[in-house]
Amino acid sequence: MADSKGLTVKKNENFVDWYSEVVQKAELADHSPVRGFMIIRPRAYALWENIQNYFNKVLREKNVLNAYFPLLIPDYFFKKEAEHAQGFAPELAYVEQKDDEQKLAIRPTSETIMYDSYSKWIRSHRDLPLKLNQWCNVLRWEVKQTKPFVRTREFLWQEGHCAFATRDEAENNMAEMMGSYQQMVEEMLAIPVLVGRKSKMEKFAGAITTLTMEAIMPDGKALQMGTSHNLGQNFAKSFNVMFKDKNEQDQYVWQTSWGFSTRLIGALAMVHGDDKGLIVPPKVAANKIVIVPILFEDSRTKVLAQCKHLASQLSEYGAIIDDSDKSPGWKFSEWEMKGIPLRIEIGPKDLDKKQVVMVRRDNNKKEIVAENHIIESVKKNLEDIQKDLYLNAKKMLESKMDSARDIKQLIKKLEEGKIVKVFMVDDKRVEEKLKEETGANSRIVEEESKEGECIVSGQKTKTIAYVARNY
Amino acid sequence: MADSKGLTVKKNENFVDWYSEVVQKAELADHSPVRGFMIIRPRAYALWENIQNYFNKVLREKNVLNAYFPLLIPDYFFKKEAEHAQGFAPELAYVEQKDDEQKLAIRPTSETIMYDSYSKWIRSHRDLPLKLNQWCNVLRWEVKQTKPFVRTREFLWQEGHCAFATRDEAENNMAEMMGSYQQMVEEMLAIPVLVGRKSKMEKFAGAITTLTMEAIMPDGKALQMGTSHNLGQNFAKSFNVMFKDKNEQDQYVWQTSWGFSTRLIGALAMVHGDDKGLIVPPKVAANKIVIVPILFEDSRTKVLAQCKHLASQLSEYGAIIDDSDKSPGWKFSEWEMKGIPLRIEIGPKDLDKKQVVMVRRDNNKKEIVAENHIIESVKKNLEDIQKDLYLNAKKMLESKMDSARDIKQLIKKLEEGKIVKVFMVDDKRVEEKLKEETGANSRIVEEESKEGECIVSGQKTKTIAYVARNY
Repeated sequence: MADSKGLTVKKNENFVDWYSEVVQKAELADHSPVRGFMIIRPRAYALWENIQNYFNKVLREKNVLNAYFPLLIPDYFFKKEAEHAQGFAPELAYVEQKDDEQKLAIRPTSETIMYDSYSKWIRSHRDLPLKLNQWCNVLRWEVKQTKPFVRTREFLWQEGHCAFATRDEAENNMAEMMGSYQQMVEEMLAIPVLVGRKSKMEKFAGAITTLTMEAIMPDGKALQMGTSHNLGQNFAKSFNVMFKDKNEQDQYVWQTSWGFSTRLIGALAMVHGDDKGLIVPPKVAANKIVIVPILFEDSRTKVLAQCKHLASQLSEYGAIIDDSDKSPGWKFSEWEMKGIPLRIEIGPKDLDKKQVVMVRRDNNKKEIVAENHIIESVKKNLEDIQKDLYLNAKKMLESKMDSARDIKQLIKKLEEGKIVKVFMVDDKRVEEKLKEETGANSRIVEEESKEGECIVSGQKTKTIAYVARNY
Repeated sequence: MADSKGLTVKKNENFVDWYSEVVQKAELADHSPVRGFMIIRPRAYALWENIQNYFNKVLREKNVLNAYFPLLIPDYFFKKEAEHAQGFAPELAYVEQKDDEQKLAIRPTSETIMYDSYSKWIRSHRDLPLKLNQWCNVLRWEVKQTKPFVRTREFLWQEGHCAFATRDEAENNMAEMMGSYQQMVEEMLAIPVLVGRKSKMEKFAGAITTLTMEAIMPDGKALQMGTSHNLGQNFAKSFNVMFKDKNEQDQYVWQTSWGFSTRLIGALAMVHGDDKGLIVPPKVAANKIVIVPILFEDSRTKVLAQCKHLASQLSEYGAIIDDSDKSPGWKFSEWEMKGIPLRIEIGPKDLDKKQVVMVRRDNNKKEIVAENHIIESVKKNLEDIQKDLYLNAKKMLESKMDSARDIKQLIKKLEEGKIVKVFMVDDKRVEEKLKEETGANSRIVEEESKEGECIVSGQKTKTIAYVARNY
C-alpha cells in the first residue's frame, strides 16, 4: 500500500504540501485519473460513515426522511429560478445527448428536481411540513485549483429540503438545522466554528437568507463547513409548489435547504493534524485504539493472547491489534500517521508487571496503566483527547480573530492569516470591490448596535463583516 | 400526498399495471421528469437503508472495507479489457467535454477505475487480499422499456471488488459472497432464489465465471437479484495489477466483483404484494407495526394515551401511531397499501376490556390480544408473517418450475409463465438461437450426471439450462 514513512514537510512551514502529504500517507484519499476528482479511501470513508450515522439520528429526531432523487436534471429546470440558474451555470456538467432526450445536467444540488416533485406531492396543509434529505454525490465543475475533500469536482454530501406552511417555520428550521450542524462539528469533530449570516454576495443562489458555519484553518483561510438556507417562496413560485390552507385558499410553501459535505474530513485533517500525520478525534474515529504487541520469540504467544483479550474487552472502541511482522517503532509511526487517538503497548515485561503502556496520539503523553485500571483509563484518555483537541482548535481560532479600521490594515492582517472584523455595507458592489482590493471576501455578516464606517465605501453602517481568504 | 385509494387492478389479472400502481400508491417511487429515471421515495429508501445496514455487517465480518471511487471514468479505461468494453459500450453515457478534458463516461460499474488504483496500491503479497466495497449510483443507458426499481437508467447498488494472491481464494470469495446474498434475500426479504452459474452468453462482461441468484416473479419472468463474478486475471492483466509473491516473483492478482441493487425492492413488491397493496416482510420493515386508535370524543384522550404507552413499549419494532383525523377504515386501507406487517387497533371498548385487536397484513387474520400478552403476541405474529411470506413465495417458485424436451414444449411452458429446465450446450451461438426462437434465455446453467440432447442443436450434452423470460 502507500508508503508509510513519515511526512517530509512540517505543518507550520509548508501547510499546502503538508496537507497533501497527510491526505496521501494517512490513506484518506488518492488522486483520480480524472483531474479534480478524488478517490475516498476506507479510512476517510469510515469517518464519513460515522458522520452519517450521527446525523441520521438527528434527522430521525427531527422527522426528516431520507430519499433519493435522480442524478440527471433537465437543463430547463435550472432556468426556472433566475438567481439559482445564474449561480450554478458556470459549474454545470452536461451529459452528451442521446436520441430524443432533453438536455440534461449532472446535479450540482437538487433544489430544482426535488421541488418539481414537491409541487406534485403537496396538495393540502396536511401534507406539510414535508422534510426530506438525501445523501448523494454532486458535481460542480470547479475552475479553481482543486484540493482533496476541500474542493473537488465531485463530492459526497447530504442535502435537506423542507417545505412549510409559514415563513416562521422556515426561518426556525434554517436556524435549528444550523444549530445541529454546529453541535455535530464542535462535539464530534472537535472543530469550533463561527456561525452567522452570509452577505448578499455570498448567500446561496436562490435563497433569501443563508446561515453558515465557518472554521478557520491553520493557514488563516476560512473553510465553509455547512450552510442552511431560507429559500422563502422563491422556488415555490418558480416550481409552483402550492397548498390549500385551512380556509381552502391556495398558498405558496416556504422552503429551506441545508447541506454539509465530505469537506468536513478535510477540515478535520487540517485542524488537528501534526508533523506526525493525522489526528482523529475519538468521537469520530472508527478505531479509537490500536494495540501494539512488543513481540519476542519466547513470549510471543502469551503477549498476543493478552492483546486479544484486551481487544475484545475494548471492542466498543473499535480496538485493533497490529500483529504484523513490522517492528514496533515502524508500527508506532504508521498508526500515528493514520491518527488513531490512543495506542496501547504490551510487551513481556508488561505482562509480568500486569500493566500496559498507554500513549495519547495528540500530545504523546505516555502512561503506565495497571491491568485492572485499563477500561477507566481508556475512557478518561479518550475524553481528554476529545476535549483537548477542541480546546486547542478553539485557541487557534481565537488567535486568528482580529479587526481592522482601513483597507491597508485589513490587507496586512489577512496576510498574517487572520479573519478580520470590519464595518462593511452589505452590498454586492461594495463586496466586489473588497474582493478586488484584498483577494478576500466576507465569511459572515452581522448587525452591531453601534455604527462605524464601511471599510470599502466609507458609508456609515451598523453591518460588520468577518473577512478572510478562503478555500 | 399521493392518492391512497385502493388499487384499480388485480395482481393476477394485470400484473404489469398492478405493479406500477403499487409502486405509486405505496409511495415507493415516483416518475422522474427524465425518462428511465426514478425518484426513490422515503418508504422505499428506508428499505434500502435496512438492506444496507444488514449487508454492512456482513462486510465487516468479512473484512471488506467501504470506499468511494469517482463517478466519471476515462473512456479509454473501458477499452482496456476487450470483453468488458464490448459489453458496456451500448449503455455508456458520456459527459460533454469541457476544455482539455479527456472523454469521460458516467460509471455503469467500477471495475476499471478501481483496478487502476489497485495497480498502484498493491505491491506485495502483504497487501493482499484487498477487499473494498462501494455503495453508489450507476448509470446504464437502457434501451429496453424501463420499470421502477427493476430496470432504470440510474440505480443504487453496492459493488464489492476483491483482489487475491491465488485462484482458489478468488473462487471461494465468489461463492462465499453469493452465499451471503442468498441468505440475505431469503432470510430478510423472504424471497427464495435459484442460485447457480451463468452461461457463456449471460456471464458478466470480463468475468471467467458469474454466479447468479434468480427469483421468479408471479408472471413467470425471472429477475436477477445479484451476481458474483470470478474475474480471473483478465482485469489484472489489462490494468497491470501485480504483486511480488513470497519468492519476490511478480504475479498478477486474481479478482472478484459482486453486486446487488435497489432492484431488490422491486422484487419484494412483486413477490409479496397483493390486491390491497404492498406487504413488507417484518425483517426489512422500518415500521413493523402501525397502531390505529379508534377515536370518539369522550374517550379520545384515554385511548391516545394507551396508544402512546404501547408505541413506546414497541419502539424496537418502529411502531407508529396514526392519530390523523381520517376515519379508521381509511387508515386501515392506507397502511395496508403501504404494507406495514402488523396493525394494532385500540378503541374505548378495548381499553375497558384491557385488550387490543391485532391484524396481520399478509393474511388479514384478526386476533384479540390481552394487554399483558401484547409483546409476546407481536413477536410471534411478526415471526409467523416472515415465515409465511417466505413459504408462500417458495410455493409460488416451485409451482413455476418445469422442464421440456423440445422447443415446442419449451415455448408452451414459457407462455404458461414457467422457468423451464432443458438440456442445452453452453455455447453463445446455441443460446442466441434459443433466444431467437423463444424470446427467452438461460438464467442458470448446471452440469447433470447424465446426458441428454441439446434442445437447440440436438447435440449430446450434460449441461442443462433453466430457461425463462426475464426482466
